Amino acid sequence: MNTKTIGVLTSGGDAPGMNACIRAVTRAAIYEGWKVMGIYRGYEGLISGDIKELTTESVSNTIQRGGTVLKTARSDEFRTPEGRAKAYENIKKLGIDALIVIGGNGSFAGAQALASEHDITVIGLPGTIDNDLYGTDSTIGYDTALNTIVECVDKIRDTATSHNRIFFVEVMGRDAGFLAQNSAIAAGAEAAIIPEDNTDIDQLATFIGRGIRKSKNSSIVLVSEKDGGAMHYAERVRKEYPQYDVRVSILGHLQRGGTPTAHDRILASRLGVASIDALKEGQRNIMVGIKNDEIVYVPISRSIKMDKPIDKELINVLTILSI
Amino acid sequence: MNTKTIGVLTSGGDAPGMNACIRAVTRAAIYEGWKVMGIYRGYEGLISGDIKELTTESVSNTIQRGGTVLKTARSDEFRTPEGRAKAYENIKKLGIDALIVIGGNGSFAGAQALASEHDITVIGLPGTIDNDLYGTDSTIGYDTALNTIVECVDKIRDTATSHNRIFFVEVMGRDAGFLAQNSAIAAGAEAAIIPEDNTDIDQLATFIGRGIRKSKNSSIVLVSEKDGGAMHYAERVRKEYPQYDVRVSILGHLQRGGTPTAHDRILASRLGVASIDALKEGQRNIMVGIKNDEIVYVPISRSIKMDKPIDKELINVLTILSI
Amino acid sequence: MNTKTIGVLTSGGDAPGMNACIRAVTRAAIYEGWKVMGIYRGYEGLISGDIKELTTESVSNTIQRGGTVLKTARSDEFRTPEGRAKAYENIKKLGIDALIVIGGNGSFAGAQALASEHDITVIGLPGTIDNDLYGTDSTIGYDTALNTIVECVDKIRDTATSHNRIFFVEVMGRDAGFLAQNSAIAAGAEAAIIPEDNTDIDQLATFIGRGIRKSKNSSIVLVSEKDGGAMHYAERVRKEYPQYDVRVSILGHLQRGGTPTAHDRILASRLGVASIDALKEGQRNIMVGIKNDEIVYVPISRSIKMDKPIDKELINVLTILSI
Amino acid sequence: MNTKTIGVLTSGGDAPGMNACIRAVTRAAIYEGWKVMGIYRGYEGLISGDIKELTTESVSNTIQRGGTVLKTARSDEFRTPEGRAKAYENIKKLGIDALIVIGGNGSFAGAQALASEHDITVIGLPGTIDNDLYGTDSTIGYDTALNTIVECVDKIRDTATSHNRIFFVEVMGRDAGFLAQNSAIAAGAEAAIIPEDNTDIDQLATFIGRGIRKSKNSSIVLVSEKDGGAMHYAERVRKEYPQYDVRVSILGHLQRGGTPTAHDRILASRLGVASIDALKEGQRNIMVGIKNDEIVYVPISRSIKMDKPIDKELINVLTILSI
Repeated sequence: MNTKTIGVLTSGGDAPGMNACIRAVTRAAIYEGWKVMGIYRGYEGLISGDIKELTTESVSNTIQRGGTVLKTARSDEFRTPEGRAKAYENIKKLGIDALIVIGGNGSFAGAQALASEHDITVIGLPGTIDNDLYGTDSTIGYDTALNTIVECVDKIRDTATSHNRIFFVEVMGRDAGFLAQNSAIAAGAEAAIIPEDNTDIDQLATFIGRGIRKSKNSSIVLVSEKDGGAMHYAERVRKEYPQYDVRVSILGHLQRGGTPTAHDRILASRLGVASIDALKEGQRNIMVGIKNDEIVYVPISRSIKMDKPIDKELINVLTILSI
Repeated sequence: MNTKTIGVLTSGGDAPGMNACIRAVTRAAIYEGWKVMGIYRGYEGLISGDIKELTTESVSNTIQRGGTVLKTARSDEFRTPEGRAKAYENIKKLGIDALIVIGGNGSFAGAQALASEHDITVIGLPGTIDNDLYGTDSTIGYDTALNTIVECVDKIRDTATSHNRIFFVEVMGRDAGFLAQNSAIAAGAEAAIIPEDNTDIDQLATFIGRGIRKSKNSSIVLVSEKDGGAMHYAERVRKEYPQYDVRVSILGHLQRGGTPTAHDRILASRLGVASIDALKEGQRNIMVGIKNDEIVYVPISRSIKMDKPIDKELINVLTILSI
Repeated sequence: MNTKTIGVLTSGGDAPGMNACIRAVTRAAIYEGWKVMGIYRGYEGLISGDIKELTTESVSNTIQRGGTVLKTARSDEFRTPEGRAKAYENIKKLGIDALIVIGGNGSFAGAQALASEHDITVIGLPGTIDNDLYGTDSTIGYDTALNTIVECVDKIRDTATSHNRIFFVEVMGRDAGFLAQNSAIAAGAEAAIIPEDNTDIDQLATFIGRGIRKSKNSSIVLVSEKDGGAMHYAERVRKEYPQYDVRVSILGHLQRGGTPTAHDRILASRLGVASIDALKEGQRNIMVGIKNDEIVYVPISRSIKMDKPIDKELINVLTILSI
Repeated sequence: MNTKTIGVLTSGGDAPGMNACIRAVTRAAIYEGWKVMGIYRGYEGLISGDIKELTTESVSNTIQRGGTVLKTARSDEFRTPEGRAKAYENIKKLGIDALIVIGGNGSFAGAQALASEHDITVIGLPGTIDNDLYGTDSTIGYDTALNTIVECVDKIRDTATSHNRIFFVEVMGRDAGFLAQNSAIAAGAEAAIIPEDNTDIDQLATFIGRGIRKSKNSSIVLVSEKDGGAMHYAERVRKEYPQYDVRVSILGHLQRGGTPTAHDRILASRLGVASIDALKEGQRNIMVGIKNDEIVYVPISRSIKMDKPIDKELINVLTILSI
């Protein structure tokens, strides 16, 4: 294998740990004697040519920073063959042999489209707070977002002392309930309402049923954003169970930010180094993930199409512990 | 003065540092050889008799905890003379010589009404995150809430990388802009919209005017909750300046919780000790506050009626630094 | 199986998440209709009879707290057959059918001795910040301690701006380098010196050799406590490489405390629930651990005797990223 | 007044909030139409000419960062007239009309020496975690260091559950006990041993005397670094009171780092803006400080020579609350 120049970009929603990953990709490539081009603002910058060389120093002191120093964006133009052709022009012009894309589902779909139309190797690295990528136990940013949510719910619980008060706390994860389910367990919440569950009417009724019998001072329910989210359930409770005092808290964008946790920095570092290893081995068009604490390669097409289920054990744990 | 038994309660919205204050009141009274009765759930517990003696040990290991171990509530019944008469019955029955009330405006108004109708000494201690009490430079909980907001805005800024995006972040302070104005300075935000300012239409227009000329990637505006708050301004921008991408984040109840900062713990400790000193001196119906880093006594009636203005210097500082 | 009454204790060094685990054990047992006896101060309390029944409410609002509400101690008396016989007297007297021990190596050895001499079922749950227990990928408290260390090193790095300055930061882990190795990666440190490595003289020389060639402003080396720890290496540098300005920071006991991370709370909750499941299944004298994100049972004798190696990949990752 | 170009530097020990102050100085000067030169590594850079122009953008996204982007150093050469003459050469060459020095005592002494020998206006801004500067209620970095210490002691307390164990926690402040005294109150510690007190032998004996009578499980004593610090007292207790189990924790360099608190960011912003106001007014050779929440000017000579006493009230508060 004789890769000489790689490009790296972050794409889609930003996630804590992306900088740690850019740093690892950059240094591992330089360690091999390769050249690294940093592409700014995701596929937008690949099309417009907003690209600068990265050095060991240019990624110094970034491992602890949230967001992404390469910025990120969603690019409509890149969704068209014409846009991707323009991007490929820049790739050729700069002599980029392989493209490393840090992002989620949509970003990988873009990478795959590019690789199928043009002669370029792509490697995907899972960076999204939602943890909804098949082929990896954990995505970069998920652990940090989980901790951010739990810290917020800890604070909300401090103030939740009045009787019969129900808080619905809305968290990210439109299509995946990992954040809601796990933060509910970690925060000692009473229930989680997640998109994987299609029986939410019963869930609320069951939860209320359990709640009424309890001597608890307050209840906290984590809700994944979707179809009205927390507000929807608050409205239902106000109508159907007017005896309760209901409050809503929508955590919003702060879930994306913050200094990454140790877990996310280590994961990002390992995946970044592994992406260069994969290129050395001649791998093409894969996602590098982590399974059972070991580096794995997954065809990028498979990482996009497959669903990652929530462990039933976790649902059981929450039910038992919220008595 | 020969006070022997005091009662202590927290009332109104909870604030971080209330536990540190309860601890200080309790220990300083016990240090004098007095007895301390903890009244649960504010004036509600005073009426219903939900009262237990506090010891040195019962306040151990509470200085660092958010919320209030005595719980808090808003009591409609206490707003009536009949309710206050019931409360006084319990005060007499338990031999309480003085009542220490940790809370804000509304709580002090209740204390004053009680003291004007019955033979009981009341001492108010300023506990509210809003910092809107006359006669004290700082209220218990304000510094913690300010830091909580700033940490949240730091996280939001991490994700605020796209061009022309304006975030409106809504914080507490319906009648006072201390939290919004100071967190805007501390978070490096571009503007603050506060209730003290009656020219908010111009404020938004001015801010946008400045914003358009700038090469900034993103703007963050702190907004006090009031008249629709952040959502109102977001709607206006969407209509009047459709070229911007607008996001809203309502921080909500998490602002009330969390481990108190060093500042709030020290303030709460000093005020708690000073309340017992005031009783030793025979003071009646005052609020104990802090001015220029010294303990002061303010007639409780005055603390309620007077407004506390925002320093113009701070408005100027924000304007200059957001260039 | 007809377990009716269980005892639970924490033993050895405390670890964040122990409370979350006590809570889970308690609630999962009560969920089954069982009775739970909380044993205070580890085996000491089992011998002295410092034991109280735990209820659903008595573990409320503890999931987020560091330390252990059951306290912990190291018991010399329990190391003798006589001590264990006394402990068994209390077990019989209280009708305890099974004992759940949350702790590390030494605590498990005690549990095994007890079970081999008397008719009592023991279940071990891995609670130690060192992560050095065979049969589980992760121990309760390890993730929190790792994050605490990384936050400290982030702060130290803020001040480490002068040229040629080397910081040796000593962390816990007398026999296991998990904390040092992983925190070095996560904190972006230049090297880790760990007990698993028997070539430390070369390590320091190699590190210095690399350091001299680099244009770095400062270097941070994580050192596991052992044989003089950080101080030993600082002395060596002062003697052998006097051109460097060396500083030492020993993180010490603060590594054991703090609010547990989401990961530790979830792990503790899952293991606690699983320990009751194991008893329902009639398991005896096992440790309940987590492997590849699934609950596993390991003979308690095996968990004590086997070593858990450090992944070589992590050593490689650190070497590459510290260029 | 027609200042056109200012220089800004940080000097001495770094302190959180220095970046917020550099940002404020830079933007307030640019707001006036002035030019700002950033001098790197304190007086070292002034002598060697390590100086670059600062723009509005170059201080973007720095308000929340610990350390100092201008770096800091202690310069032996600047302590000589020859060194200061070299520095003045650079000042003239770059057309710098005024020098803003962010630092502590030693840094201000250097500034004064420069101003007394050469025709240059200097303005000092108080930046030190020790809070030991006369003429200002608070120094930039003090509030953050205080909170860092309190967070550490909170963690240490989590693990301090065994009987008769005394922790001596050593904090910074060789000549001033502000950090030790205030963190002791805020952390709920049992005592503080500070340099302002010359009766430390009695202090320890008194504390032990109180401790023996108490039913406390553990005691925490904050000790200012000086004359052996915490280790000294631990040794004394081991010899004189062998019945106690003693532990030592030296917090060290991590006290200097970390994201600044809201208080320090606001203070730094206000002082930075005020330094430009002072130059506009034609002020020379002053320190800009804060007294009673208002900006004040103090002759720089006076800020160096005068001592700032510790409030006796605080010593009393700690004594009462540690019962």
